[in-house]
Formats: sequence, C-alpha cells, structure tokens
Amino acid sequence: MLGKEKIERYFAERAKRMKASMIRQLLRYVAEMPDVISFGGGMPDPASFPIKEVREIVDYLVDELGPTVLQYGSTIGSSTLRAQVVKFMAEMGIKLSGIENVIITTGSQQALDLLARVFIDAGDAVIVENPTYLAAINAFSLFQPRFVGIPMDGEGMRIDLLEEALKKLKSEGRRVKFVYLIPTCQNPTGISMSMERRKWLLELASQYDLLVVEDDPYSHILFKPTEFKRLKAMDEEGRVIYMGTFSKIISPGLRVGWMAAEQPIIDKMEIAKQAIDLCTSPFTQLIAAEILRRGILKTHIPRITKIYKEKCQLMLESLEEFFPENCDWSRPVGGFFIFVYLQQGVDADAMLDKALERKVAYVPGKHFHVGGGGENTLRLSYSYAKPELIREGIRRLGEVVREFSGT
Amino acid sequence: MLGKEKIERYFAERAKRMKASMIRQLLRYVAEMPDVISFGGGMPDPASFPIKEVREIVDYLVDELGPTVLQYGSTIGSSTLRAQVVKFMAEMGIKLSGIENVIITTGSQQALDLLARVFIDAGDAVIVENPTYLAAINAFSLFQPRFVGIPMDGEGMRIDLLEEALKKLKSEGRRVKFVYLIPTCQNPTGISMSMERRKWLLELASQYDLLVVEDDPYSHILFKPTEFKRLKAMDEEGRVIYMGTFSKIISPGLRVGWMAAEQPIIDKMEIAKQAIDLCTSPFTQLIAAEILRRGILKTHIPRITKIYKEKCQLMLESLEEFFPENCDWSRPVGGFFIFVYLQQGVDADAMLDKALERKVAYVPGKHFHVGGGGENTLRLSYSYAKPELIREGIRRLGEVVREFSGT
Repeated sequence: MLGKEKIERYFAERAKRMKASMIRQLLRYVAEMPDVISFGGGMPDPASFPIKEVREIVDYLVDELGPTVLQYGSTIGSSTLRAQVVKFMAEMGIKLSGIENVIITTGSQQALDLLARVFIDAGDAVIVENPTYLAAINAFSLFQPRFVGIPMDGEGMRIDLLEEALKKLKSEGRRVKFVYLIPTCQNPTGISMSMERRKWLLELASQYDLLVVEDDPYSHILFKPTEFKRLKAMDEEGRVIYMGTFSKIISPGLRVGWMAAEQPIIDKMEIAKQAIDLCTSPFTQLIAAEILRRGILKTHIPRITKIYKEKCQLMLESLEEFFPENCDWSRPVGGFFIFVYLQQGVDADAMLDKALERKVAYVPGKHFHVGGGGENTLRLSYSYAKPELIREGIRRLGEVVREFSGT
Repeated sequence: MLGKEKIERYFAERAKRMKASMIRQLLRYVAEMPDVISFGGGMPDPASFPIKEVREIVDYLVDELGPTVLQYGSTIGSSTLRAQVVKFMAEMGIKLSGIENVIITTGSQQALDLLARVFIDAGDAVIVENPTYLAAINAFSLFQPRFVGIPMDGEGMRIDLLEEALKKLKSEGRRVKFVYLIPTCQNPTGISMSMERRKWLLELASQYDLLVVEDDPYSHILFKPTEFKRLKAMDEEGRVIYMGTFSKIISPGLRVGWMAAEQPIIDKMEIAKQAIDLCTSPFTQLIAAEILRRGILKTHIPRITKIYKEKCQLMLESLEEFFPENCDWSRPVGGFFIFVYLQQGVDADAMLDKALERKVAYVPGKHFHVGGGGENTLRLSYSYAKPELIREGIRRLGEVVREFSGT
C-alpha cells in the first residue's frame, strides 16, 4: 500500500500549504465531547429551523412538480428562486434590474470560492476588516492574494485607515481587487458599521475604483430597530457585490445562498460555477423559494430574532457578572457573536486548553486576524448553546480567565 | 454604472480564460426550444427518480431526527451516509477499511474540482482517455495541467499507447499526477474497458508509480451481465481514487457523490472542501443514506436499467435504419451514451446548426477531445429523450447527416 509519505509527494504545492480550519477542528473535537458547553462554532439554534414548513413544502412540491424536483438544474440557479430573491432584496431596500443580477450559490461559502476564482491573481491586494471571517480568509487564500487588514473600532472598519492604506497601495502601484466586509453584525466581532462610515467607504470605492463585497448573513437578525442601510442599497455605481444566504434565517442544511451584482460579474460567476458543482441542489432551492413565496419569513424572522436576542442578552449579563473588570467586549445589535478583549498580554489561544478542561469552548481571536495580532481576543457565539447553559458556560470561562490572567 | 469593459479589468487572468461549457450553453439553448428533440445533455430520465420514496423518507427523517436534519454537517460528510457507502461499495466488490476512506462530495463534479485543487500544479501531466468527460477537462483546467489524451478503441483506452506515452513523459522528466478514466460505459463514447486492459493499466500504474482516478457514474446501469470489475476492486496498492455518485441511480438534484481512497488523500480532500462549501447538504445526504439503508436500490436499479436499455436499443435500431452506411457508432453495454463516427471530413460542429434547424440536438464530439481531433464525431444521449421521440429524432438527424455529407 502507498503510505502517507509517498502519497504526499503527489499533492500540489497549494495542497501542501492547506491547513484544516481551526474552527472546524474545534467543532469536531467538541462534537466528541457532548458535555462541553460550546461557544465555538457559529451554528444556528435548531429551534430556529422551520422544520414543519419544510416537510409540508416537500409534499407540496412533489405534488405540484413531480419527479422534476429531483432533476439537474441550471448552473445560475432556479429562476423561480432567483425571482423570489429579487423580491426579497427589494424588501431589503435593494433594487435589482432583474434575475440576471442574481446567481444561486451552494451556501455563501461557495460565493467566497467564486470570488476567489473570478477575481484574485496571486499578489493582488484584498482588503478586509481586521479581524474578519475565517472562512473568507481560507477561501481567498487559495489564489494567494496579499491580505490588507484594516483595524475596526465600535463603528466598524476604520475608514480613515482604509484611506491611508489605499493611498499607500496606490503609491506602491499595487492592484486592489476588492474590499471584503461584513458590515452588519460582523463575524467575529458582532460590530455593525455606522452609516457615516458606509457612505465614506462607498465614496472611497468610487474614488479608488474598487469593488466592494458585502457579506450579509446576519442583517435580518437585529435586536432593535436600526438605521443601517445595506451597502448594496446605497450602491449607485454597481461596485457592490452582495452575498446573501438562507443559512441563518431558514437552515444551513439547505446549502442555499446567492450573490447579487452587475450582470457581467454574474455571467462570469456562472461560468466558474460550472466547473465547481454544475448546479446547487434544485430540490433545496425550490424549498427556499417556496418559503419565500409563502411569506413564511415575515413571521419566522421575528420569532428567531427573539431567540437570539434573549441568548445574547443572557450572555452579556453573564459576562458582566463573571468576567474581570479589565476585560471588554462588543455589544452586538444583532447576529451571533460577541467579541471579548482580555487584558493585554493574555494569550487566548494558550488559554483554550484550560477552558476545554473546564468543559467550555470558544474560538481564539487571533485566527480571525490577518497579519498577526488579536492574541488577547476571543470570539463567543451565543447562537447554538442552550439558554440554560449560557450562564454556566460564561461562569466557568470567567474563572478560567481569572486564573489564567492572574486577576 | 460600471460597464462590462470596466468590470472585466477586475477579473483574474484565469477568469479571462474561462469559457462557458459548450454543453451547458447548448442545454440552455435547447431548454428555450421545447420542440427540439435533445440528445444533447446526459440528464437522467425523470421517470427514474424514486420520488415517492424521497417524500416518504423526508417525513420519516423529520419524525426521527427533528430539526437537526436542517443543521450544518461535518465537511467530510454524514457518518451515517459514509457507513452506507462502505456497505454499498462492498456489494460492488470493493473492500474499504472503513468510513475514514470515504468523503462525501456535492455531486461528483465537486470531486473533480477537489482532485484539481489537491493534485494539480501548473504543467503537471494529467492523462485522460481521448475523448473524455468535458466537465473533467473544465475542472482540471483551472490549474493548467498539460493534458495527455490516449486514444481509445472498442476495448477502452489503448494501454499500449499509454505505455508509450508514459515512457516518453518519463524520458522528458515530466511529472504525471494521475490517469483519469471512466472505465465503464464511458462518457462520451459509451465504451467499457476490457478486463485485460484494466489489469494492464494497474500494472503500469504500479510500474510508473501513478495514481488512477476511476470515475464511475454508470456502472450500475448495465444492460447485460458483464465480467467487469471496478479498478478500485483490483487495487492492491492503494493507487485508485474512486469517484461515485447517486446522480444517475437516485437523483442528480440531491447533489450527493463521494470519493473513496487511501486516508491521507481523503484527509487532504476534507481540508480542501472546507474552503469550497463547508459541507454537502446534510438533508440530501440523509435522504440518500436512508434510500441505501432501506435497500431500495436493489429493486430500483433493475427498474431504471430497463428504462435505459430500451431507449438504447431503440436508438441503436434507429441509427441502423436512418444513418448512412459510412457511419459507425459504439454499442454500449450500459450507461447513457452512443458515440457516432461520421465519414472522415464531415464536421459535426458545423452540422449542429442544420440539426437545430431540424429540431434535433447532439453534442459535437470534438469538444470531448484534448489536443484536437474528433471533428467527425458526435455524442448522442438516449437517457433523457422520451422513447416515442428517439426514432423521430434519429430519423431527422440521419437526414441532416446525409444532406450535410452529401451521401
């Protein structure tokens, strides 16, 4: 038999560089330890899934459409679903010309992969919030961009620092392909970008001739009314590529997301997707389309927002109660995440083993950073853990923090 | 608004090279012309989908597992499904150590994409049957291998010519990453490789230290008993990477396939898949697993094989009746395709317009060839067209051939 060493000689250079995502490894580890209270992965609460509606819709689709629901679909996606997405986006304040501006993706992870394939040449600058979504870094890395991380504060990406970076990149003659952001309820920080910053960002995009990728999985899960507009709703020049997903508001198991952008971009995405998976499951696409058509989300989204709001509140209160005073954390207006800043010098990565011994899990913040930094930060997800365990988990973690940092 | 020209400046070099697959374009075109008799795409017959069983299984899964059927799953795939795949492969004469040798893919197209990512460096030689599966060429091309096409005859890939090519590549110091084949009921030719050739191929793989990729979507759809063993069943050195799919025997709409290989390969595939789509839909995976668990395929496969056998027979008889004597074609023992060789000098690509005028579609064979050739060939798929239209379609096409070739 070919051994491990022999097999490795066949791997491409890029494959030799590939590392398992820290989060996926942690999830796997935690899955084998059912008594761990996990604030690690950003999984939705299964209580938020419209399971009865899905079952009913499967029956309906089989009756209405027969076996064709199980056939191959077009690469760009079901036109029924794309039309529903256009309507859904109109309700979000985003006016598209038509379904030609929409491509369906196999979860929004595939959208990240498509972005990498279609836009990134080795060495291109890709600008991200720092910290940013780990799976975006992983997807983009395949084609070896140079990541430029822009620090954040409580109002989101520091656009003044973005401007500095753009000037510098321009003077160096470096090519910027796009700015990737999660402007609303960001992963991992939970921070939302202020309207002022959003406007300024789009002004800079115009001035420096940039594309902007707006990854928007959480903006429907808002705990209080806000004045945020999506970047795509403010996009007068067609510079914004919008990424949407049903993973958090319907179910991640359907693996249905979408991108909305100017047609030449969608056309190129479609060609790239042919070689990736031919098509997203038309079966799960039609389920999503029917959920939209029936207007189920109008009552469903408020219901699940209530679940997450209560969990977030519970976690914030527990942090206040159990964490040392020299720690700080974000106060999200929505989404799944709270980001914690420990005392400077405390290494949250090294602390994880202690936390796991005490049966509580989180993701060390440094993994979300490009170009180093964030050692004293960690991401807590309140989305998945049972409400009755959130207080206990934060109590344990508070003890670990005190012991580990000697406070 | 950014215009098309401006947007194109952002595209990566690889994206500028990407072309829409001829087949996907043709399918789209034909979909808009419902009166065309299409022998173009290799879509299964919707009458072959176990739609009642799928509906029943969705009810069962919702009752048994509740909302977790809609949750994220692990990247490597559902362990329930992987265990069923191990059993299914044992029935196919392939003994795996366990589920650690299996990764679930989002259709077998994703397996092709994973192969490209994990194995191909630019300039690596990738050896394929000539002609070969178009979507494999597309997927592999992303990383710019050098394709080496080995001609086929009625017994499959010409292994004598493979040996010559291997000698030549070795003398040139070129690195061969793998040999990719569809040994049974090949796409596009419908040809199956003889047992003698299979043995010889594996001997050469051992001698030249090669990996072999066995893409096997059609081997369950055999019209008569045959003596073929899967390459993976004959693989004593762990050199064969097996690609399976439920697209042809259950439904392509589930988007569930798998790869079976030595564990270090599966491990690397898992890491690569994280950045591609996080996981294949656990919902559709569980449907496939339950179909396997219930033993539905034991009666289902014979039932659908009968459908395809009759269609194939009908097409072969019609070819005999309506095509000129100077044409020849393959006589498949199973699968979805017949490959037609027109008179030398007749360009099947140029003939397609005439065929579409007469409302009949096929795929010109040259698109399946690497390094040129095959201009006088075409692929006919009998899988999708209604039986009552097959004879009429071939009659029309026979007329087009006669007119176009002046016979």
